[in-house]
Amino acid sequence: MEEINEYAKAKPSDVRRFIREGKIRGQTSGMCDGFAQANLVALPKDIAFDFLLFATRNPRPCPILEVSEPGETKVHFIADEADITTDIPKYRVYEKGVCTGEYENVTGLWRPDLVFFLIGCSFSFEGDLLAADVPVRQIEEGKNVPMYNTNIPCKSAGIFHGNMVVSMRPIPYELVPKAVLITGAMPKVHGAPVHIGAPEAIGIKDINKPDYGDMVTIKPGEVPVFWPCGVTPQNVIMASKPDFVITHSPGHMFISDVKNVNLKY
Amino acid sequence: MEEINEYAKAKPSDVRRFIREGKIRGQTSGMCDGFAQANLVALPKDIAFDFLLFATRNPRPCPILEVSEPGETKVHFIADEADITTDIPKYRVYEKGVCTGEYENVTGLWRPDLVFFLIGCSFSFEGDLLAADVPVRQIEEGKNVPMYNTNIPCKSAGIFHGNMVVSMRPIPYELVPKAVLITGAMPKVHGAPVHIGAPEAIGIKDINKPDYGDMVTIKPGEVPVFWPCGVTPQNVIMASKPDFVITHSPGHMFISDVKNVNLKY
Repeated sequence: MEEINEYAKAKPSDVRRFIREGKIRGQTSGMCDGFAQANLVALPKDIAFDFLLFATRNPRPCPILEVSEPGETKVHFIADEADITTDIPKYRVYEKGVCTGEYENVTGLWRPDLVFFLIGCSFSFEGDLLAADVPVRQIEEGKNVPMYNTNIPCKSAGIFHGNMVVSMRPIPYELVPKAVLITGAMPKVHGAPVHIGAPEAIGIKDINKPDYGDMVTIKPGEVPVFWPCGVTPQNVIMASKPDFVITHSPGHMFISDVKNVNLKY
Repeated sequence: MEEINEYAKAKPSDVRRFIREGKIRGQTSGMCDGFAQANLVALPKDIAFDFLLFATRNPRPCPILEVSEPGETKVHFIADEADITTDIPKYRVYEKGVCTGEYENVTGLWRPDLVFFLIGCSFSFEGDLLAADVPVRQIEEGKNVPMYNTNIPCKSAGIFHGNMVVSMRPIPYELVPKAVLITGAMPKVHGAPVHIGAPEAIGIKDINKPDYGDMVTIKPGEVPVFWPCGVTPQNVIMASKPDFVITHSPGHMFISDVKNVNLKY
């Protein structure tokens, strides 16, 4: 059964305030039903062109929803009255590709040369799948979506290089075309699957051991379907080792004021 | 009647070679039927982040097909064996927002700090309109598409700001929904119209006097339909006055190896 989050019907601006005030510290999956959530990457201006170029060249795993001017901490386009240094429940700092800490806000760590990127998240298309009676197993089972490193190379840009991370949802064979059409209509949040059916063909050795998230049940008559995943930037940051990057902690997303349905147009 | 270009059935790589060798110097409209053509903007690295951010924030008028690394002159993704300094029939140089010259190649003007951007062009969706029996008047009349300055502001980024330029095609009322669906399916080449029917609502004072291109006949029972236009970057460059920019000359496009049909996915 689908779990109903306590904040499923809350307004994004209220939930962001609860996060800012420390009342919410956990994962954001299931909060603010119908509104887009976003991945965060913040890095210094001197490598921001390279990263924006990386995202431009790899729009499937890295669909850009907003990019700030250098030093800016306010969100301008996808949310009103939001501060990127306080409105996410948990942050990570990566130094030279290594995660050196998790933080409840990054106000004291922010630098005037930082540019932040908000990147689309597959949570946005799961509502449409469920509405069309396509099962989303990790929601049914109350787990994180399983995610895998692959051998699919991203297109490099400047210092940034690395392979794509994918999320997996088991889909009944007869619903696969519907799942492709539904998600293909939302290219701003990863779009259509990148692979259907043969995990080993994209470098996944053991489907039962995801590299991130939790394994979910694949039932008889279902096939694993793989979508480009917003964890790809963190994988690329670990591979490319820039001096200083701030990201969200996986599952602890920025909740925007943009309705998922508006990401179709 | 639709005019058939001498190079309509030629391979893009052959036409690029003819251009490089000086055998073709004119406009590229109608050449290499089925292959995408692109607008060029090349500018120094120190403002390249601002321009890429401008394009990211304004994907309707500025859909990015390729961005180079600084100093690069070879096209890597949308064409094989192409040199951006020689493979366009006519170039323009803008200095502080003013066009200071037109050139047949820019080999001698190229600088190691230049980054080039190739931006989608509405030529790409006209084939689908014609195939579906939606008239494309400027092709029927052997003219340039009419283009207009508007009062629709683009989202600013760094030094770049300005209003959107639109192209206009008169469409019979009953075919407008079809024209919206066909072009909406191609967001990488401007996508759906930005306005239908009331030129004055977007700041166009006299529909009979386009700011660029030629006026075409609007027949009884037809409505003017406006699409975001790839001339927008040149308008923005004139408004924003960067020191040095190289562009193509309007109508003299870069012809890529990418099939238009592949820009749908």
